[in-house]
Amino acid sequence: MSTDDTTTTDASTESKCGASEAKSASKASTETESKCGASTTETETESKCGGSSSSSSSSGCGASSSSEEEEVGATVDDFESEPGRLIAVGLGPGKPEGMTSRAKGALADAEHIVGYTTYIDLVPDEITDDAEDIYSTPMCGEVSRTEEAIDRALAGNDVAIVGSGDPNVYALAGLALEILESKGGTASAVDFEVVPGVPAAQSCGARLGAPLVNDTVSVSLSDHLTPMEEIESRLHAIAPEGFTISIYNPWSRKRRENFQRCCEILLEHRDPDTPVGIVHGAARDDEETLITDLGTLPELGEEDIIDMTTTIVVGNEDTYVWDDRMVTPRGYETKYDY
Amino acid sequence: MSTDDTTTTDASTESKCGASEAKSASKASTETESKCGASTTETETESKCGGSSSSSSSSGCGASSSSEEEEVGATVDDFESEPGRLIAVGLGPGKPEGMTSRAKGALADAEHIVGYTTYIDLVPDEITDDAEDIYSTPMCGEVSRTEEAIDRALAGNDVAIVGSGDPNVYALAGLALEILESKGGTASAVDFEVVPGVPAAQSCGARLGAPLVNDTVSVSLSDHLTPMEEIESRLHAIAPEGFTISIYNPWSRKRRENFQRCCEILLEHRDPDTPVGIVHGAARDDEETLITDLGTLPELGEEDIIDMTTTIVVGNEDTYVWDDRMVTPRGYETKYDY
Repeated sequence: MSTDDTTTTDASTESKCGASEAKSASKASTETESKCGASTTETETESKCGGSSSSSSSSGCGASSSSEEEEVGATVDDFESEPGRLIAVGLGPGKPEGMTSRAKGALADAEHIVGYTTYIDLVPDEITDDAEDIYSTPMCGEVSRTEEAIDRALAGNDVAIVGSGDPNVYALAGLALEILESKGGTASAVDFEVVPGVPAAQSCGARLGAPLVNDTVSVSLSDHLTPMEEIESRLHAIAPEGFTISIYNPWSRKRRENFQRCCEILLEHRDPDTPVGIVHGAARDDEETLITDLGTLPELGEEDIIDMTTTIVVGNEDTYVWDDRMVTPRGYETKYDY
Repeated sequence: MSTDDTTTTDASTESKCGASEAKSASKASTETESKCGASTTETETESKCGGSSSSSSSSGCGASSSSEEEEVGATVDDFESEPGRLIAVGLGPGKPEGMTSRAKGALADAEHIVGYTTYIDLVPDEITDDAEDIYSTPMCGEVSRTEEAIDRALAGNDVAIVGSGDPNVYALAGLALEILESKGGTASAVDFEVVPGVPAAQSCGARLGAPLVNDTVSVSLSDHLTPMEEIESRLHAIAPEGFTISIYNPWSRKRRENFQRCCEILLEHRDPDTPVGIVHGAARDDEETLITDLGTLPELGEEDIIDMTTTIVVGNEDTYVWDDRMVTPRGYETKYDY
């Protein structure tokens, strides 16, 4: 993509690419448009910077990825402007009320907001309406989408990338830093910052009562990037111990067996009557919560309540169910009379 | 403590106890005062309901607790009014910007706000000024403080109990439910609700970069309520696996050896050059962050940066340090070219 002398201040130049030809670092040039790709089309998004998005597929991200599809795009040498800022923002469980003030402020300050379409839709309208540009892609475009966000920051825009929950959990922040490094950039140059959010483990825990109150583990059953053998090893390690366990990505059409395998491993080490909480679609309109037990869990794998939007919380040996809530004692009852 | 007929609407009666004699469930009686104990004195707080607070001590909560000190106070039969609401609110890392809108709204709605003094101080003035009563106690008063909060709810007040981070992590929500049950109450009767917040693991992770991005464990080294043998067993279980680890309560004057033991166990299973991030006093004025490695960690135990306000984040075998940030790869680099 072409670059331009930084003294050009033609505010009306449009660029189809993150390396905007007329975007200066100064915030005064607000009429400059930087549109990359088709920012709002779900399935036909193609970014001219950093590779194309995988086609929208609900079966997981593995099938369509191959190294020739995801090519390295622009590097830091392709940009002449001063970089803008890059901030990774966690949106929490979903609704605006679950966002921190800091998250809202960071998004309001951003000129460009980038993210998976479903998460972009969670950002309040008054914030998205105010941004210069919104770039969203469907699921499985996270690598190219993150590259796009970084290119836009390198081009001088202040960019926020968003995800649900917290940016450190399974997603946003690490990938951004890795891609930044591969482009020859530095985190410092884009003032890289992470704004934490409430993770799914805690927002789902809150819906269930007080299940996580002791030492706790989060595990993902998605073997897209982590081999199932490693996931099984992790489950075998934690199941015999007193950890409460939050299971992310418990099921998808292509990974039914991972869920079954997980149930088997947990049942090797924990009682079948161990309470288990299931929260589907937390903070969404189709939110559903169920408290059941480990012995029943395997048969629920094919039920609607367990899918990719579900978080499953497994109690430890002290967890009990009371008044429709999961409670894991902290141990106070062994020391205090109440 | 005395109770009163619910038809009494004398708004000027003051009660020293949660079982307020004049508090009706109706929100119209806003002139009613319900003061319990010395709500703002750090060291001399004594609640007339549910036992006395332990004396303020920075050495941990173990020394002064004995069952005769913490006696069961009021039970649900001692109250005649309709119960008010009880909500456990997570404040996140500390500053108001780290609170969710939902947390702020819940506190604004509460008539009474109860919590450890340091956390009460984190609540914005406009919210505390608006509450009918604030009840705060120093550290180690959590059982009596929680009992006080529940008594006030049973007496008909809408009560919020607050803690830093998330109410499910090590603290607030589970204890509240246990005490409620011991008083013969139900969670439903007080509309018990948990408002999640950003846990310390995630807010400290955000300060360090992207250290937690994979499956992750939180462990507390406080053996006040969990025997050290169990903690050691948990550390031995997780250290050989690919979990990133957030360590809460890593050190106190009375528990120095727990920290050393933890370091030993981690070093049995992980390389000495494994990156470790230390965040002291996150979001406070004395916040300090350091990225070091596992081999160096033991000698830092006696440094100021490691105390009770510290969270330690231990990387896995893939974690690296780049541009002063900890990065734990998710695994995208094995599937995608960037």
